[in-house]
Amino acid sequence: MTSVLIIGGGGMIGQKLALSYNNSDTVSLLDMAFPESSDVNAKKIVGSVADAGILEKTLTDLPDTIFYLASVVSGEAEADFSKGWDVNIHAFWSFLVQIRDKYLKSDGQYRPKIIFTSSIAVFGSPFPNKITDDFLTAPRTSYGAQKACCELMLNDFIRKGFCKGLAIRLPTICVRPGKPNLAASSFFSGIIREPLNGLKANLPVSTDVRHWHASPRSAVRFLRHAENLNRNSLTFNGALNMPGLSCTVEEQIEALRSIAGNEVVKLIEPNPDEKIIEIVKGWPENFDVKIALNLGFWAESSFEDIIQTYIEDDLPNNVIK
Amino acid sequence: MTSVLIIGGGGMIGQKLALSYNNSDTVSLLDMAFPESSDVNAKKIVGSVADAGILEKTLTDLPDTIFYLASVVSGEAEADFSKGWDVNIHAFWSFLVQIRDKYLKSDGQYRPKIIFTSSIAVFGSPFPNKITDDFLTAPRTSYGAQKACCELMLNDFIRKGFCKGLAIRLPTICVRPGKPNLAASSFFSGIIREPLNGLKANLPVSTDVRHWHASPRSAVRFLRHAENLNRNSLTFNGALNMPGLSCTVEEQIEALRSIAGNEVVKLIEPNPDEKIIEIVKGWPENFDVKIALNLGFWAESSFEDIIQTYIEDDLPNNVIK
Repeated sequence: MTSVLIIGGGGMIGQKLALSYNNSDTVSLLDMAFPESSDVNAKKIVGSVADAGILEKTLTDLPDTIFYLASVVSGEAEADFSKGWDVNIHAFWSFLVQIRDKYLKSDGQYRPKIIFTSSIAVFGSPFPNKITDDFLTAPRTSYGAQKACCELMLNDFIRKGFCKGLAIRLPTICVRPGKPNLAASSFFSGIIREPLNGLKANLPVSTDVRHWHASPRSAVRFLRHAENLNRNSLTFNGALNMPGLSCTVEEQIEALRSIAGNEVVKLIEPNPDEKIIEIVKGWPENFDVKIALNLGFWAESSFEDIIQTYIEDDLPNNVIK
Repeated sequence: MTSVLIIGGGGMIGQKLALSYNNSDTVSLLDMAFPESSDVNAKKIVGSVADAGILEKTLTDLPDTIFYLASVVSGEAEADFSKGWDVNIHAFWSFLVQIRDKYLKSDGQYRPKIIFTSSIAVFGSPFPNKITDDFLTAPRTSYGAQKACCELMLNDFIRKGFCKGLAIRLPTICVRPGKPNLAASSFFSGIIREPLNGLKANLPVSTDVRHWHASPRSAVRFLRHAENLNRNSLTFNGALNMPGLSCTVEEQIEALRSIAGNEVVKLIEPNPDEKIIEIVKGWPENFDVKIALNLGFWAESSFEDIIQTYIEDDLPNNVIK
């Protein structure tokens, strides 16, 4: 029996992560809002991570594992500079300070495992063909800079022994169910999800854009694997790049065609957006994730697999499978 | 004519930097304390960078260039976790926010150049033989983590256009004049300075420890060169490793012997300190600083030169030259 807190537990990954636990585990979720209908059986706390009082209340149960998924997404952090920094790093800092206070007050008895979801946005161009585990973090977005700062902070708290844990850098999660969000990467899911649901989809970038993907199912697997990992196997004091699939938008579209046919693909409409093009230009395309693979993390090996995962897990009224 | 603010202007580098300006330039200094006797002719503001009111007052003159040198040093940041993070990153963040406010209120008319002194402590082991310009920042000290966060923040403010500037990573500055400080690196200077002044010096590490040094004179040259640099020549959104000299403690001692003789060297007393040994173990030893050299930065090429610089610039009642 484990007690788990998911900060950002109302989000798509948070909900799927909560569902991955058994009934014998105690799961609490903190978020600004929760889906109206949900199969998740967990204690829900409504509030902002930026609210120290709410956070304090949330931590009173002293959870063994805390997943910190809450974040202002990339597009919004770029558009609203102050909000991005306030929520993405200052709230995370306050959270870490509360963890340290509880550690000190309990004479080191309380020392939870904190799994933080960082992002491949910590990397900035110019890139090598494949980004290796020791590639530098020189982000070209505010979101990336914020995630990189959080990694440094968490790693220092871990090094000092105030908590255990790991920062993992997720690929772009694709196919996200539900509606488009403000992430600049939202279209990578949209061009698959909308057509499969009979809707038109905007494609804001050129089809030769290459990117790094993993399914929501893989993301949940990464998080659970990180929870059970022995950090001693890490030789450097950094964050860990997660496995994924490198493919172009064209390869995404051809995978969709092979699964759902020509008529579905015709729902994708090119609609160039200079802002998105500019942000995506600064994003990595491919990785060599030796350390994570050696530690037992794994992801899909074809975009068809990623689409199938969406169809199996999330497509409403699925008529395709 | 330039107007310059040096935050941390009461420190050793701050004072030497202030002296590098002409009488026609306007120089202001902010620090907690200033040396009693000093040749520096500048406006002195006594206060902490962590005090938002003092910072506000200090910035009313809208300086063209701001050098941000203020910092809790490595040893102290490791011993006092809260103080290190508070001063080294939260105060720097408040400073950047004030700069952005002034930028926004002036409709972009005020956009100063901010030169931030970061450190090679942003790097953590394992190291390659020589650390290259694109080596990752995975620090193993709180001080290093704090400096790395500041780099990320400053680079994001620069990228967004709220200010200009550059973060430069200084080698260990050696030979520091004056008294030992709380930096874990303090002994690198002490074993040269104390004997040259007829005093005994503690050597807390083994003589085969290799490290990366530059003189105070070089540090001032780096800062002035960074002030005049065109950032467009940088191809990545990171901080810049400064040139230095890689040598062992034994090579330092032999350089001292060649300049000052055996009797002076005998004043060095081995006195192993496990805390210092542990911190220094996580520090880099050698660099390949291609980008900085191409941009015209340069440092000493022998430890004898570094000692001569100390003798010329700082040795009180110098009888050796």
